[in-house]
Amino acid sequence: MTQINAVVPFKTKGAKKRLAPFLSPEERKEFSTAMLRDVLSSLKDTNVTILATEEFTLDDSEMILKVRDQDLNEALNEFITDLHEPTLIVMSDIPLMRRWHVRWLLSEGITLVPGRGGGTNAIYMHDPSTFKVDFYEVSFLKHVKIAKERGLPVKILDSFYMSTDIDKPEDLAEVLIHCHGESCRYLKSLGVRLSYGKSRIGVERD
Amino acid sequence: MTQINAVVPFKTKGAKKRLAPFLSPEERKEFSTAMLRDVLSSLKDTNVTILATEEFTLDDSEMILKVRDQDLNEALNEFITDLHEPTLIVMSDIPLMRRWHVRWLLSEGITLVPGRGGGTNAIYMHDPSTFKVDFYEVSFLKHVKIAKERGLPVKILDSFYMSTDIDKPEDLAEVLIHCHGESCRYLKSLGVRLSYGKSRIGVERD
Repeated sequence: MTQINAVVPFKTKGAKKRLAPFLSPEERKEFSTAMLRDVLSSLKDTNVTILATEEFTLDDSEMILKVRDQDLNEALNEFITDLHEPTLIVMSDIPLMRRWHVRWLLSEGITLVPGRGGGTNAIYMHDPSTFKVDFYEVSFLKHVKIAKERGLPVKILDSFYMSTDIDKPEDLAEVLIHCHGESCRYLKSLGVRLSYGKSRIGVERD
Repeated sequence: MTQINAVVPFKTKGAKKRLAPFLSPEERKEFSTAMLRDVLSSLKDTNVTILATEEFTLDDSEMILKVRDQDLNEALNEFITDLHEPTLIVMSDIPLMRRWHVRWLLSEGITLVPGRGGGTNAIYMHDPSTFKVDFYEVSFLKHVKIAKERGLPVKILDSFYMSTDIDKPEDLAEVLIHCHGESCRYLKSLGVRLSYGKSRIGVERD
């Protein structure tokens, strides 16, 4: 497989606010880091740069840490503007991602990974300099449009695991059901478990 | 491709109640039928039986219609108990399913398609007589367990499109974003469109 770059944006301060009050601020930070680790372990075959909002340590010397002070889109677009090597942008809150997804993402143009609710959970760019990202709101449709305007072929990666970004307490159920890696272990260590509501599953803890 | 059977359970009376009051009873019925049609069009290469809760007409003479008076699980288990030919059970509310998913589902044992929230949106059985279904609640985990207890190899189909079952108004956004087929056309004909909430997308209409 060609060596590819991966960029993972990571927010430390005030991350995952919608998991409050189910998880405390300290637990949200721990859980965010556990999700990041799961994503990074699926990116073992790539050159990873973490684009963080502030300095932080992760006991893995292989990663490049870049601190950004701009908006996510600005920071990512600055990162890719002169880049011609195959590059992957991956959100840090999709802990169900696996190593084999990386191979599946490769294409000759742009690969978009839809998240639930119109988001984009990952983007593969064969030549990043030809693309421009525009996250937030219905970014999936915006990214399809940008690629088409630039004449780039678009592949849509149809993955449930990669579509599952963890924002709200009910999303934690997916982590427990499809248990895998550090995120699931961490939730279990807190005593978080599935709860059976009237029509849809949720989570509860002691 | 081997000829395979497909069974699609379909509920007419009181279907899709959670889409009320966003859609009227009549609209919910129309929309359920549009979703069924989208699923059926992805099953063009299979022998389809619709397992309905009551008689209804669909202008397609190729389908076998069976009316069931039992519970969903009982009816499905009765259907598969003496069946040895490759068979697919597909829910009728996953309109983003496509024709190529059928090929992807094939396996030597059991293929499970997780839905959001722990459900099972489709099951492929190489030899149905060896399996037993148990829908409702966290049926995905129950189906994994049943297959393992019976020594059947399990393949998990990682598909966002097939994981997307449409139950609540917010799910309609997925139909509009990944627009394809009759379900999307029907929603658009009602004037349903995406709306941009604070943090997640929804739908609105006149």
